[in-house]
Amino acid sequence: MKNDRFLKACRREEVDCTPVWLMRQAGRYMKEYMEIRNKHSFLTMCKTPELAAEVTLQPVNKLGVDAAILFADILLPLEGMGIDLEFAKNEGPVIHNPVRTKADVDKIRVIEAEEATPYVMEAVRLCRKELEGRVPLIGFSGAPFTLASYMIEGSGSKTYINCKQMMWQAPEVWHALLNKIDEVIVRYLKAQIKAGAQAVQVFDSWVGTLSPRDYEEFVLPHSKYVMDNLKGEGVPVIHFANNSSTLLELVKKAGGDVIGLDWRINIDEAWKRLGYDVAVQGNLDPIALFAPPEKIGEMVKEILDRVGNRPGHIFNLGHGIQKETSVEHVIALVEAVHKYGKRNL
Amino acid sequence: MKNDRFLKACRREEVDCTPVWLMRQAGRYMKEYMEIRNKHSFLTMCKTPELAAEVTLQPVNKLGVDAAILFADILLPLEGMGIDLEFAKNEGPVIHNPVRTKADVDKIRVIEAEEATPYVMEAVRLCRKELEGRVPLIGFSGAPFTLASYMIEGSGSKTYINCKQMMWQAPEVWHALLNKIDEVIVRYLKAQIKAGAQAVQVFDSWVGTLSPRDYEEFVLPHSKYVMDNLKGEGVPVIHFANNSSTLLELVKKAGGDVIGLDWRINIDEAWKRLGYDVAVQGNLDPIALFAPPEKIGEMVKEILDRVGNRPGHIFNLGHGIQKETSVEHVIALVEAVHKYGKRNL
Repeated sequence: MKNDRFLKACRREEVDCTPVWLMRQAGRYMKEYMEIRNKHSFLTMCKTPELAAEVTLQPVNKLGVDAAILFADILLPLEGMGIDLEFAKNEGPVIHNPVRTKADVDKIRVIEAEEATPYVMEAVRLCRKELEGRVPLIGFSGAPFTLASYMIEGSGSKTYINCKQMMWQAPEVWHALLNKIDEVIVRYLKAQIKAGAQAVQVFDSWVGTLSPRDYEEFVLPHSKYVMDNLKGEGVPVIHFANNSSTLLELVKKAGGDVIGLDWRINIDEAWKRLGYDVAVQGNLDPIALFAPPEKIGEMVKEILDRVGNRPGHIFNLGHGIQKETSVEHVIALVEAVHKYGKRNL
Repeated sequence: MKNDRFLKACRREEVDCTPVWLMRQAGRYMKEYMEIRNKHSFLTMCKTPELAAEVTLQPVNKLGVDAAILFADILLPLEGMGIDLEFAKNEGPVIHNPVRTKADVDKIRVIEAEEATPYVMEAVRLCRKELEGRVPLIGFSGAPFTLASYMIEGSGSKTYINCKQMMWQAPEVWHALLNKIDEVIVRYLKAQIKAGAQAVQVFDSWVGTLSPRDYEEFVLPHSKYVMDNLKGEGVPVIHFANNSSTLLELVKKAGGDVIGLDWRINIDEAWKRLGYDVAVQGNLDPIALFAPPEKIGEMVKEILDRVGNRPGHIFNLGHGIQKETSVEHVIALVEAVHKYGKRNL
C-alpha cells in the first residue's frame, strides 16, 4: 500500500497527515461520472463491474483522496432477498412489494452474497486490481435499520410511520425481519472483505428518526450483531449513523472501530463522549463545499484544530456530497486537509 | 383562568397534573378542521379571524388539552415585509421573490404588526373571548433562522444551500436581513401579547441543519435579541428548536422560560444539560400517535417517569401532529398525560 494513512488512522496509529475521503465521492457532481451515467442507468452501472470500478477510481485520480470507496448502492443486497426494487427517474428507489406482515417477512430469503450480488464482489476485485495499491478500498453496506426502513416503507420516508408501527405493534415481526437483514449484511460484508475490501463502512443513514429508547430496543441488538460478526475479519469497520448525535454512546455500544459523525456536533465534544478507544470520522457540513475555497480552508482548519494531535481522525463530510457541488471546491477541501493536517512525526 | 396548569408549569410552579397541548393540534387530522378547510383556502382561514378562532378552539373542545394555540402560519408576517408569498397546492409555501442580495435585503420593510397582520391580532382577541378563560391562549412566531430560511430559499429546503452560502460568503448581508426579521418578530409577538396571548412560542423548525459553530455565530445573537426584548412582557416565552439536541445549551443561552425538546433525546438528560432554572416542553415522537392506545399510554408514562416530581414540564410532542393521525389516538394521549401526570399536592 503506497498510501496507508487511512488504514493507520482507523487503527488510531500515528500518521504523517490526516487522511481524507468523502462520502459519495463517486457521484453526480463529477463530469467524468456524468459521462458514464448519461449512457447507462444507475442500476446498470452498479451491476457492471467495469463501470463500477471506473467510477470508483475517478475521485482517487481527480481529487487525491486517501481512500477509494466502492461505487454501489446500499439497496443492492435486497434483490436477492426477494425485494422488487426499481430506481424510478428522479424519485429515488421504489420497492413494489414492501414488507409489512409476518407473511411478508417469512418470504424474505437469506442467501449467499456471491450468489445474490456476484457483480459487487467482481467490482471489488477489479477496483483492487486497478488501484494497484495506491490507496485502500472501502466496501460498505446499509445498516439493519436503514435497510429495514426501505423494505418496510417501500421508498425513502419523512416519517417512518410503517417502520415505527411495526416496532410498536408487532415487535416480533420487526425482530424477525431484522434478524434476516443482519445475516445478509454480515454475509455481504464478509464477501466484500474476502474479495479485497480493506475496510468496510456500515451506513445507518436514517436512524436519526428514532428516540434513544427505540434505538436501544429495536436497533442496537441488530447493529451489534453485525459488528460482532465482523470482528474476526481483520479489517477496520466504520459505523456511521447520520443525525444521531444523541445516540452516540449507543452507536458505540453497538460497535465499530471508527464512529462516523455528522456536522451537528463539535468533533472534540463527540469524541470525548465516545471515549478515545475508538477512531472518529467526519465532520464537515457537506454544504460547506458551497462556500468560497478560503472559507472551506478555514472550516477544515477549525475541525483539525478541535482534534489536535490525537491520532485516529479520518476527515470526511458529515453526510454525502450534494450533486450541485463544484469539483474545484472538493479539490480545495482535500488540499486543505492535507495542508493543515500535516503532523510532525 | 379555570385551568392554569399550563401557565403554572411554564413558571415552574407546582401543578395538580402535568399540562399537555400538542404542536399543530389545530389541523388536518381533525374532521371538524377539514370541514372548514374544504370550503376555504389555507390563507383565507389564517386571514379570517372568525375561521382562525373556530379552528383554534376545536382541539380545546375535542381533546381536552390544557392550552389553545392560535391557528396561524409562521410565514404570515413576511407579506408585510414585501415578500410575495403563495401556498401552492400540495407543495407548501412558495416565495416568488427570494432574498439573495444586499439589494433584496434593503427592500425588506420593517412595519408594525397591527398594520401588517391586523387579522392575527383580531383572531387573538376573538379566541380569548370565545375561550372564556377555559384554558390559556398561546401566540407564536417563527424564529429568526426559520423565517430567514424561507425568505432566502424561497420554499422549504433539504439542504439550505442558499442560506448557508449567504452566511459564509456575505455575513454582513445575512446579519442585515436577520436584524430586520428580529425586529419584525419582536413587534409581532408584542402585538399578540397586547391582543391577549397569555404565552408565546418561538418556533425554530429548521435550525437543526446547522453546526453548533454556525448556530452560535449566525443565529444565537438574533434569537437572543428576540428573547431579550420579550422579557418585560409578563408572559412566558417557549423556545422550540427542532432537531437541535446538540444545540440545547446554545438555545438556552439565547433565552426562553421554557425550552422545547424534540424526541431525539431523553427528557431527563436534556433537562439536566439545560439546567433546572428553565421549564421544558416535550418530548414524545409524533409518530407514537400511530401506535395502539395502550402503547401510547406506556410511552407517555415513560416520559413522565423520567421527569419525576420536578415542576416545570409541559407535555407535548417533539414536533407537529401528522395529518394521517387518528383523533382517537390523540385523545388517548391527552387522557394518558392527565392520568399518569397527576401530582399529589
